[in-house]
Amino acid sequence: MSTQTPTYPALTIDGVELTSRLIMGTGGITSLATLEEALIASGTSLTTVALRRYTPAEGESLFGMLNRNNIKILPNTAGCYTARDAILTSHMAREALGTDWIKLEVIADDQTLLPDGVELLSAAEQLVLDGFKVFAYTTDDPALALRLEDAGVSAVMPLGAPIGTGLGILNPHNIELIASRASVPVVLDAGIGTASEAALAMELGCDAVLLASAVTRAQDPAMMATAMSAAVTAGYWANRAGRIPKRKHALASSPMEGRAT
Amino acid sequence: MSTQTPTYPALTIDGVELTSRLIMGTGGITSLATLEEALIASGTSLTTVALRRYTPAEGESLFGMLNRNNIKILPNTAGCYTARDAILTSHMAREALGTDWIKLEVIADDQTLLPDGVELLSAAEQLVLDGFKVFAYTTDDPALALRLEDAGVSAVMPLGAPIGTGLGILNPHNIELIASRASVPVVLDAGIGTASEAALAMELGCDAVLLASAVTRAQDPAMMATAMSAAVTAGYWANRAGRIPKRKHALASSPMEGRAT
Amino acid sequence: MSTQTPTYPALTIDGVELTSRLIMGTGGITSLATLEEALIASGTSLTTVALRRYTPAEGESLFGMLNRNNIKILPNTAGCYTARDAILTSHMAREALGTDWIKLEVIADDQTLLPDGVELLSAAEQLVLDGFKVFAYTTDDPALALRLEDAGVSAVMPLGAPIGTGLGILNPHNIELIASRASVPVVLDAGIGTASEAALAMELGCDAVLLASAVTRAQDPAMMATAMSAAVTAGYWANRAGRIPKRKHALASSPMEGRAT
Amino acid sequence: MSTQTPTYPALTIDGVELTSRLIMGTGGITSLATLEEALIASGTSLTTVALRRYTPAEGESLFGMLNRNNIKILPNTAGCYTARDAILTSHMAREALGTDWIKLEVIADDQTLLPDGVELLSAAEQLVLDGFKVFAYTTDDPALALRLEDAGVSAVMPLGAPIGTGLGILNPHNIELIASRASVPVVLDAGIGTASEAALAMELGCDAVLLASAVTRAQDPAMMATAMSAAVTAGYWANRAGRIPKRKHALASSPMEGRAT
Repeated sequence: MSTQTPTYPALTIDGVELTSRLIMGTGGITSLATLEEALIASGTSLTTVALRRYTPAEGESLFGMLNRNNIKILPNTAGCYTARDAILTSHMAREALGTDWIKLEVIADDQTLLPDGVELLSAAEQLVLDGFKVFAYTTDDPALALRLEDAGVSAVMPLGAPIGTGLGILNPHNIELIASRASVPVVLDAGIGTASEAALAMELGCDAVLLASAVTRAQDPAMMATAMSAAVTAGYWANRAGRIPKRKHALASSPMEGRAT
Repeated sequence: MSTQTPTYPALTIDGVELTSRLIMGTGGITSLATLEEALIASGTSLTTVALRRYTPAEGESLFGMLNRNNIKILPNTAGCYTARDAILTSHMAREALGTDWIKLEVIADDQTLLPDGVELLSAAEQLVLDGFKVFAYTTDDPALALRLEDAGVSAVMPLGAPIGTGLGILNPHNIELIASRASVPVVLDAGIGTASEAALAMELGCDAVLLASAVTRAQDPAMMATAMSAAVTAGYWANRAGRIPKRKHALASSPMEGRAT
Repeated sequence: MSTQTPTYPALTIDGVELTSRLIMGTGGITSLATLEEALIASGTSLTTVALRRYTPAEGESLFGMLNRNNIKILPNTAGCYTARDAILTSHMAREALGTDWIKLEVIADDQTLLPDGVELLSAAEQLVLDGFKVFAYTTDDPALALRLEDAGVSAVMPLGAPIGTGLGILNPHNIELIASRASVPVVLDAGIGTASEAALAMELGCDAVLLASAVTRAQDPAMMATAMSAAVTAGYWANRAGRIPKRKHALASSPMEGRAT
Repeated sequence: MSTQTPTYPALTIDGVELTSRLIMGTGGITSLATLEEALIASGTSLTTVALRRYTPAEGESLFGMLNRNNIKILPNTAGCYTARDAILTSHMAREALGTDWIKLEVIADDQTLLPDGVELLSAAEQLVLDGFKVFAYTTDDPALALRLEDAGVSAVMPLGAPIGTGLGILNPHNIELIASRASVPVVLDAGIGTASEAALAMELGCDAVLLASAVTRAQDPAMMATAMSAAVTAGYWANRAGRIPKRKHALASSPMEGRAT
């Protein structure tokens, strides 16, 4: 038995229709079987994988599982600290996996794992020239998001909070600003800890949500994946339903006239 | 087409199984047809109606519509400012509608529409003695919630924010405290403005969410009802999936060893 | 050397002028000398003491120290769980200390140490009849605050958060609502952890702030008392200076015309 | 009469001792007399002025007033949208005002007035080479803050919220991270609306606070300046006093044993 929630329209990026707006990461999971179960529960159409995890042996099982479930692979450059490093890794990914989609991560330092905006922009510019479809993992800086868009990226992916923290969306004001000005898809990426935060990301105007740890490190990954899928659906419709304004003072939902006594 | 989200277990109150954990109010809607559409989209099993709205003529159409959709009616005492008034209204509701379920509202004043804890507790005690199943609309005060439970109410219904404000859950700490200590169902009632807040209510441990204005006054009530239904589902599962702890510092979702370059 | 911050007007309660709007508690301190140092640094004019701490021997030193520093004593009923208990304790305090001022605390349970609104109101009504000046320690429920005022209390003292948690002001909306409607002084009591929260209490319209643990359990109590004193001053003036409205969009502080290039 | 709050140690930048940690902007004021009154009330030692406001006639009165009050001038590059523009403006400022201190602003666009990180870093690098002491107005991105420091700036000045919004500190997590890692002074710049937010900035570890609109556009600028001065003092001491930890559960400030009844 299941509830019958209307499905939202697919998100189209680079001509590819993503039927789910929940994009999953694969890090942090304990076994391939658990990962598969969680991915199926999430309903995801797209999953990001660190290129360095691809080895003929191990890769086969992970990538084979994704192919078996019709989940498109978005290789990422996790672990790269310079534009040069990320560009090189992107080219290796294209060669190994036969896709010009790349989730571009250029990390500033080991402690915060925050994106380095300068190196990121530089790498994005080059990769666009090299024919890649760049999904740029970035800070929540609205100005940087616009510059990435100007550089030709296919999607802007601002973080909600530092990766793995589960702190949610630390600065909703910035995320809303990014979403309201972008003409490419905006994907909230990193920081999500629980379902309400994924719903909030969509309410703020994001086109999709990407998360890994919140599902893979939850006590029950498949159950949390179910929650996240429903949350993204909830946020999608809430964003478009025209919410009531926030009011400082109360307003009766029932009219006050004609009461019984 | 629809997504296949696993349905959560029904919430049982007083031997009645509520298959949906989204309870709807009816105030603020512009037409009966729009209300019906929204209620169906919400999937609700239980809807609260102000007794004073029951008149042979008008009531027939509203209550007839609810019956046609198998939606149980929870009469409420909206508009009552004293225990005496609320008790009298409850008895009239039982006589008119043939149910001993009552959503007990005793309002302190017109400006804030906040519950009056003292009158509320007094009315609850009497109504329990009179054989009612009392759903007590209350503040987010954890001590009052326990006293209502001690008085024998069937459900405790703390507000998230003043009714109609759409401010969400102003004090999640209190709601979590109420839910963690209650042995009767806890229903978040009033204040919800958008879907992420309904999900949050469930994540904090509430057993259900009651809302009216957020749906009935939205620009597209049925669409917002869809969002709320998915949000309650999301929050239900997220609460039980064992979320990751919040961390101050980042944690890579992908392992840092073995990177490609 | 010291900064020259203009002093705010005294707060008059029951004809007594309190030159400081920071009221201190005494619990949690490790030595009388440390307490004295912190009280002097706080500049407080009024300090609350649990009656049960008054013993001829110990009391002499504590109360003697307060007298020596011209700090008025506000006895409290900490540790009382019923109206009856609190009323009895209040009478004992009046007899022992020769003051009809009483900080009325009626606690709901050991776990949360939250006020019990019903017992509190009942005790307040009786104590006012008995001629006490009642300072009512209460929840942040705006309706209860008004009922206490109607009962004749001299000050309403809502909590910011459960005592000792240092969580600050969990529900600023309620505190602002209480302050805007009260015609007796409103004192934010309990929950404060750091100086910015004391400033916020005043900005929300409170007339004074009462705190203990935030100072007495800080690593350097006297230094934190200095901070709290300055914070209350800051909040007092900020509340009256007419702050700028919050804006969603940026506004240049410098005019954009006539720039140099 | 005034309260005797202990003065904090001066903040030394580039060998200059700033006795006040409240740095003021001058934009948004209605008259020179009002500005002077507010600056005196703020106790500030350093005030930033847009170079483009300097004209022989008008400049004389503004700059003369600042000199008369022993307030050091920090020229800024407000209105510059590119590194090239900001560098040129900085040189003009040095020539006109005889100081190599410059508050470097490079704005991304008219709508948000947010800093452009890439242009900012580029301008900072050049200006340091040119012998300027650069005060870099930046986003709250911790990675960019470190890069600016590596480039040799004299102070990092992250925003709390977009300029003029009065939204306070949208992302305290980032500000705390910046302050904890910086080895140059960190000044919270932009976004402050009221005193408690200035106190919070200092509690998060900032070395100073810069604001303009919050004071100059307040209904009573001098009174708000008084509030801000006290707030910065409060936050300075609170940051160093070792605040109590936040606790989920209550803790009595008064011991529970030995109660009176």
